[in-house]
Amino acid sequence: MTVHLVGAGPGDSDLLTLRAARLLEIADVVVHDRLVDPSVLALVPPDVELIDVGKRPGHSHSQELINELLITLGRQHACVVRLKGGDPFIFGRGGEELAALRDAGVRCEVVPGVTSALSGPLAAGIPLTHRGVSHGVTVVTGHTRDGQGVDFRRLANSQLSLVVLMGVTFRASIAAQLTAGGLDRETPVAVIERAWTRDQRVVRGILSGLGDLDIDSPAIIVIGPAAQLDLTALGSLAEVASA
Amino acid sequence: MTVHLVGAGPGDSDLLTLRAARLLEIADVVVHDRLVDPSVLALVPPDVELIDVGKRPGHSHSQELINELLITLGRQHACVVRLKGGDPFIFGRGGEELAALRDAGVRCEVVPGVTSALSGPLAAGIPLTHRGVSHGVTVVTGHTRDGQGVDFRRLANSQLSLVVLMGVTFRASIAAQLTAGGLDRETPVAVIERAWTRDQRVVRGILSGLGDLDIDSPAIIVIGPAAQLDLTALGSLAEVASA
Repeated sequence: MTVHLVGAGPGDSDLLTLRAARLLEIADVVVHDRLVDPSVLALVPPDVELIDVGKRPGHSHSQELINELLITLGRQHACVVRLKGGDPFIFGRGGEELAALRDAGVRCEVVPGVTSALSGPLAAGIPLTHRGVSHGVTVVTGHTRDGQGVDFRRLANSQLSLVVLMGVTFRASIAAQLTAGGLDRETPVAVIERAWTRDQRVVRGILSGLGDLDIDSPAIIVIGPAAQLDLTALGSLAEVASA
Repeated sequence: MTVHLVGAGPGDSDLLTLRAARLLEIADVVVHDRLVDPSVLALVPPDVELIDVGKRPGHSHSQELINELLITLGRQHACVVRLKGGDPFIFGRGGEELAALRDAGVRCEVVPGVTSALSGPLAAGIPLTHRGVSHGVTVVTGHTRDGQGVDFRRLANSQLSLVVLMGVTFRASIAAQLTAGGLDRETPVAVIERAWTRDQRVVRGILSGLGDLDIDSPAIIVIGPAAQLDLTALGSLAEVASA
């Protein structure tokens, strides 16, 4: 009677944690998001129920319905795995699900995962912290709900690498806010689509051109001097992704 | 003839990736840091050479010596694993080692890990992003080298969760800079020592008292409203750590 909130990592199942892989083997039911890679779902035994609650246009489960589903399943089964792409607590709304389960008296365990926010840029050869280039990294969501989004002008002068998740739709506005806040229009940017998968694609440019880059969701946007580094040329950096 | 730059995760070996665990099984030699948990090193077969290059007071390998060692080993062995606590590219100086190996013509692979910066707070029940509390997170190092440290005053108004790694020594100065930048002295702070290990310890307080908290390295400092959340009460959040 435990619901395990588990990070699935950024893509390829090789980047799943040992704990996550073990839980998938013994799960009674697995509730997963759209962003969980097929290679990860392939580890779930065929007789285990797999429930897709991924939010996609025209076919969305509300967070409230997901919470209720987890509570119901948690009362019925010994081992429920709630599987989320990347890490459940970096924009995965894991805290909300955990709070709902607590209120319902359902036992939980949390298993962090390799977050796409930090590992995605690496798949493109971008180290987000690098001596002499960046002393830190900020990760934010570019998706605004109820007008409660991030104020990007406040981040313009941090001198750190900036990673924006779910920022494809509003990328022109994000670039404009950063520029208004004082960030140089020539600041390097990089966009990584579908990091750590076979379909990975990297597009580079500068901040003033971010709005015009031809990119699709899901993608990770990196803004700052580190975005122009490319360590993939050094070796088989994306070997896991293409293996 | 490949050097694999591998993240060991935040502590318990259950949080190692499948790829990392597989590499440890087939490695000819493993070069590791001080922060790699004993439970991870226990996965290395007994006949494999284990080299500790951890930097500690009075016994430090310079980064240049580590780079040279990796190059030498990379030319001698089929499979060299360079194992770093957390993720090799979040203050792990992975980029520097990768660059040195490239310059020497040694083949590399990068395997990201679960970073302590984001998963450590979770072990204390702190979700760094949480609806209505925080729309993002900034991760910086509090350790200043050559006077090139982070300007914390620039981070005071970000309205995001702030995570400081290697910040124990300079915590009073960090708090003073944030306050000077405009951050409320009553802002919640939390410190997590040895996250995801049996010796985990959590200390909470407010920004103005950070300098006086009784804490030891290695520890992760969290500053911001999310630091006062405590979801551990919800269930067996630290089950992995204590298992």
